[in-house]
Amino acid sequence: MFDRVWLNANLATMQGKGLGILENGAIAAQDGRIAWVGPRAALPGGGIETTDCGGAWILPGLIDCHTHLVFGGDRADEFERRLAGEDYQAILKAGGGILSTVRATRAASEDALLAAALPRADALIAEGVTTVEVKSGYGLEREAELRQLRAARRLAEERPVAVQATLLAAHAVPPEFAGRRADYARLVAEEMVPAAIGLADAVDLFHDPLAFDTADARLVIAAAQRAGLPVKLHGDQHGDMGSAALGAECGALSVDHLEHANAAGLAAMGRAGTVAVLLPGATLFLRETRIPDIAAMRTAGLRMAVSTDVNPGSSPTLSLLLMLNLACTLYRLTVTEALRGVTVEAAAALGLADRGRLAPGLRCDLALYRIARPAELCYWMGRNPCIGRVLEGR
Amino acid sequence: MFDRVWLNANLATMQGKGLGILENGAIAAQDGRIAWVGPRAALPGGGIETTDCGGAWILPGLIDCHTHLVFGGDRADEFERRLAGEDYQAILKAGGGILSTVRATRAASEDALLAAALPRADALIAEGVTTVEVKSGYGLEREAELRQLRAARRLAEERPVAVQATLLAAHAVPPEFAGRRADYARLVAEEMVPAAIGLADAVDLFHDPLAFDTADARLVIAAAQRAGLPVKLHGDQHGDMGSAALGAECGALSVDHLEHANAAGLAAMGRAGTVAVLLPGATLFLRETRIPDIAAMRTAGLRMAVSTDVNPGSSPTLSLLLMLNLACTLYRLTVTEALRGVTVEAAAALGLADRGRLAPGLRCDLALYRIARPAELCYWMGRNPCIGRVLEGR
Ligand SMILES: [Zn+2]
Ligand SMILES: [Zn+2]
Repeated sequence: MFDRVWLNANLATMQGKGLGILENGAIAAQDGRIAWVGPRAALPGGGIETTDCGGAWILPGLIDCHTHLVFGGDRADEFERRLAGEDYQAILKAGGGILSTVRATRAASEDALLAAALPRADALIAEGVTTVEVKSGYGLEREAELRQLRAARRLAEERPVAVQATLLAAHAVPPEFAGRRADYARLVAEEMVPAAIGLADAVDLFHDPLAFDTADARLVIAAAQRAGLPVKLHGDQHGDMGSAALGAECGALSVDHLEHANAAGLAAMGRAGTVAVLLPGATLFLRETRIPDIAAMRTAGLRMAVSTDVNPGSSPTLSLLLMLNLACTLYRLTVTEALRGVTVEAAAALGLADRGRLAPGLRCDLALYRIARPAELCYWMGRNPCIGRVLEGR
Repeated sequence: MFDRVWLNANLATMQGKGLGILENGAIAAQDGRIAWVGPRAALPGGGIETTDCGGAWILPGLIDCHTHLVFGGDRADEFERRLAGEDYQAILKAGGGILSTVRATRAASEDALLAAALPRADALIAEGVTTVEVKSGYGLEREAELRQLRAARRLAEERPVAVQATLLAAHAVPPEFAGRRADYARLVAEEMVPAAIGLADAVDLFHDPLAFDTADARLVIAAAQRAGLPVKLHGDQHGDMGSAALGAECGALSVDHLEHANAAGLAAMGRAGTVAVLLPGATLFLRETRIPDIAAMRTAGLRMAVSTDVNPGSSPTLSLLLMLNLACTLYRLTVTEALRGVTVEAAAALGLADRGRLAPGLRCDLALYRIARPAELCYWMGRNPCIGRVLEGR
């Protein structure tokens, strides 16, 4: 007897290299873990509770492995003004851009940050997301960064979703450090990373021509390693910074963006097992014509994840399903690559071996969809066929 | 005393040339029509039923003025195969492309077409759509075209949404007329348009290098005019066919797509009051780099509507809100242009003077959103803040 059994479903288990499809399958849960997966006809025994899925498809609960879900304000006004012809440099000089989000985030209490993030989390959850990574990075001072991390953690108390919190204090140089970027990087490494121990699951930084250079990055990475925290990078987005090679060298879980990464760096990531996180929402919103070199990634045998990059500046989206479409449409990922990118590869990008596939022993996190085939999740732009979700067997 | 009153709301009335914003406004309905709109403080009397909108924004119910919502099958499998590297010409030769949708549509009963379309309509309705146009065009023979139109009309019986049905029998040349395009156009003009009287609100045709030429178009347009039905055109999408000028000349309600329209044609549309319907979902899905000439449209004083073009081949989307974002992001429409494009200008594209604005005497079709400013509806990609909808005062 299992705690719970799901029957009359088609499964995309993500076992093996493909989607691991099992038509007319069954899943059984015990104590929040998957206890059995296989063909319906082979199910040994039954469950205390049995769910007839009515022919729905079950995927591992989706994992959104790169978000900036907790922030104050939004930038809809700036979006409107730019479309109306206002000069972006003038908007920046008047305090717009990321610094407007920093101001609003610093001014918000932990409760206010949580309240603003909850409906955003709800939108992701409604599509079948069961694990979401949330970065800080709009506080840019110790207390405000920790407040963002605490608000992120509280999402998991308020909603049935698992949260991974990432310290991204090295996201931008705060105004009070203007012209003293290296000093700020040192502060992040010496004070903020140690202060985040116990609160953050990982450390991220923006390694970019517009943000921190390799010397800064090495300081922060070394601090993360001292703190025993895994590293992630925003890398090679606006220029080839050597982020891919740096990520591979330091054993980063992932390097994210990678629009300008070079082939040698990607090959190094492949050898190191560092995941490439693809963020096509930013490509669309920023109208970028340079896209990540997917062919080189395939050649390098890279693991590729797909994520929303939810943030108010470059990817104001709350739909991981839309990102599946954009990954296929804009980056020409296959359906298999895209769907693995929000399940098993997204789990790898977070260093989580206990989810992302349907296999005995893993967390019983499931997403149910009323679709005829998994490709529908990638094909439609702006359609949510999610009809159910299970978190740790419940 | 009114039937119903909405208070504590901010209104985007679409009156005048902008969004017609009225903060802290009120709306009153009587017999399904708007009886009064104005500042809350000026509201004369009350309502039998009063709704406190809690500071939400109210827009005219959204109008999706160009959809192919009723069809059999989908093309998710074809999408998957193309991404996996299969040659499109080979897929076409094996019966893929639009003809696969024609086969599935011909094989479907009216009930089956309706059942497939209902969840699609539900997705649009959930975003605040109150009027949807639905085209035939996958039957390509008399009975199948009429069946599509009947299924479209039944959407309005099954759901609280107004439907405008458009005969698009001249959408493609059916296989049994291969090599005899003009013969099929004559059949459409002589038999199918007359048969659609009483069932269709308008006649549309695909005036395109890939479909029907100007001689064909003139036959169908003349038939529509004899039948007393307004004309719409799919025009200038894959090449400059002179569709803009043709639409203006024949007094078409709208010409839709217009990626390759010439400036003289656009100017003629402006003089004729023919609406340009913009379909950015197809631009994204087909990865088109050629976009409509918005600057020329502005110069011509053209009315611009925005729509989903929901269809299984080139725009598999169920989100008009996503189209607002794409119209801004890809076509650089302003927020005002985009929001007018799904309300007052979309009404004009359907020849409907009784909706699309918040003004006394018009239908009381409303959409309520929990947002801080209307720009949020354009800024977010894949977020639905709709919290309520009213159709004819209910
Ligand atoms: Zn990011
Ligand atoms: Zn169309």
